[in-house]
Amino acid sequence: MQEQHITLAHGNGGRFMRELIEQLFARQLASPGLDTSSDAATIQLPDGRVMLSTDGFTVKPLRFPGGDIGSLCVHGTCNDIAVAGGDPVCLTLNAFIEEGMPVAELEQLVASIGLAASESGVQIVAGDTKVVPHGEGSGVYFATTGIGIRPAGVTLGMDRIREGDQVLVSGPVGDHGTCVMLAREEFGLRGDLRSDAASVLPLTRAIRELPGVRFMRDPTRGGLATVCHEIMHATHLEVVLDGPAIPVREPVQSVCEMLGYDPLFLACEGRVVAIADAHAADEVLALWRELPGGIDAARIGQLGAGTPRVVIETELGGRRILEELQDDPLPRIC
Amino acid sequence: MQEQHITLAHGNGGRFMRELIEQLFARQLASPGLDTSSDAATIQLPDGRVMLSTDGFTVKPLRFPGGDIGSLCVHGTCNDIAVAGGDPVCLTLNAFIEEGMPVAELEQLVASIGLAASESGVQIVAGDTKVVPHGEGSGVYFATTGIGIRPAGVTLGMDRIREGDQVLVSGPVGDHGTCVMLAREEFGLRGDLRSDAASVLPLTRAIRELPGVRFMRDPTRGGLATVCHEIMHATHLEVVLDGPAIPVREPVQSVCEMLGYDPLFLACEGRVVAIADAHAADEVLALWRELPGGIDAARIGQLGAGTPRVVIETELGGRRILEELQDDPLPRIC
Repeated sequence: MQEQHITLAHGNGGRFMRELIEQLFARQLASPGLDTSSDAATIQLPDGRVMLSTDGFTVKPLRFPGGDIGSLCVHGTCNDIAVAGGDPVCLTLNAFIEEGMPVAELEQLVASIGLAASESGVQIVAGDTKVVPHGEGSGVYFATTGIGIRPAGVTLGMDRIREGDQVLVSGPVGDHGTCVMLAREEFGLRGDLRSDAASVLPLTRAIRELPGVRFMRDPTRGGLATVCHEIMHATHLEVVLDGPAIPVREPVQSVCEMLGYDPLFLACEGRVVAIADAHAADEVLALWRELPGGIDAARIGQLGAGTPRVVIETELGGRRILEELQDDPLPRIC
Repeated sequence: MQEQHITLAHGNGGRFMRELIEQLFARQLASPGLDTSSDAATIQLPDGRVMLSTDGFTVKPLRFPGGDIGSLCVHGTCNDIAVAGGDPVCLTLNAFIEEGMPVAELEQLVASIGLAASESGVQIVAGDTKVVPHGEGSGVYFATTGIGIRPAGVTLGMDRIREGDQVLVSGPVGDHGTCVMLAREEFGLRGDLRSDAASVLPLTRAIRELPGVRFMRDPTRGGLATVCHEIMHATHLEVVLDGPAIPVREPVQSVCEMLGYDPLFLACEGRVVAIADAHAADEVLALWRELPGGIDAARIGQLGAGTPRVVIETELGGRRILEELQDDPLPRIC
């Protein structure tokens, strides 16, 4: 491409758009499944139940320590398939690009998409680009849709959760939310915290076929607390969290204390919350702790027969109700 | 929902977002396949080759005579599957909603998605919403990804196009582009033109299994001229269009003449361009003309062995080269 910045003509269907797609997107995302001259991709699916998941990404800033909106839009959608027990196979990609965006910056983000896709073993098989006028759109928004396959032996679901089940988390919570917040440099704070954004496939594959594993979810928008609320809503059980057992990194804790946030409500992008019976819980923790992404895995609570609510037991033995998230000081975190 | 306008809290993963999804999106898009509490939808696919297509929508204004961004985001993606010879089965939906958007307006657009999906026989099986700050996003952008099935008997592709094949179009071109342009009321022009936005499935199903039908495409962004350029690029054949034979409605012609546009470059959202051999061409036209969406179907050109380019023969017998679209005066048309 000769141009240095994206223009509205890159969205018009003509020569500029063809060059953008051929010379930038297709070059970075080359795969046997991607034919930019066809209206629909034809794909071959392995055996198993077909799964679909979709997610939009509007993170600001577009790049942050540990990732960018490109890697995030691959991992985010693949992780949704992973926690549902499946293996992602392919992705489609939508880009809403703001007029004036430097072509070199867009190219870096698309390269990051290509790299994350290849790490996760998925192909980008179809895509679409739109250009919106300068001032709308904030750089770029991406949306990805993933197709996955759930192996026959995997049967996970919130309906399988029972009283007495344990709540497990694969690592510290709140890293992504805090890291993106710091990267905005609005608060005059700095830190060397990295986002946890990553594929959770190794974590989910390791445990998804254990009979006592009931359910998995990645605590993204709304954080760990929101996953607990979703489980409480669906099961009508009481979720009792063991406060001191929940892993939170020291810099996350400090930043949250300074700014008045609760890390339990901040997004993670590479963690898994699993619900398992008491027997399987030990196995899950042992399996996770052998993996690079699960070293700090912890048992952080259990499901009880009390009033349906989410409570957290504090260090001093007190109990505090964790309300459902209402207002949010952190838009555009993922 | 109690709120009258979308707030950033509707995108945070908490209570407001849950209510937005449960009370607005899920209520309008209810289907057996849509479970808003799961990370990934499990779908059952009929036999045949699986197809995938994706499209983003940024049209301005959000509503126009004959449709809105809601109906457009269903038809647009289903039509891409239809022209590739498939039957759309299900869709995923991404919404990027601008803070401050009236909830009632969003609800109308989502209702329109539901109606268009049910007309096309597809289910919305997964979705995601993001809220972006006021000033970004221009109301709402949608992205849809469609899964379709191509029956075993259908073999379409640009590689099947041969010298001597005919170019056919199912109806007048440029209606959608002109209609949206008029709906912006920037030019002080008015008219009773309606967008052609509609499902093209009846048109594609009628002809896709005829042996002499080589290829189909819907002339959206970049219009009929851009489809001809794509065919020329892929086949290295000369595309010779018969100018007077190309159906263009009178109001489209007048508006284009006044504003200096060429209707051949304006988007259609309910038309099909088909390439067929001479024998099948007659059959296609006869079949299309029996359908409500194909009454004005016409033979508009043919593929020749001359220099690879797109030329148009004028009424007076002259020949004019139709250049590839470069700059575009009409952003955000679909």
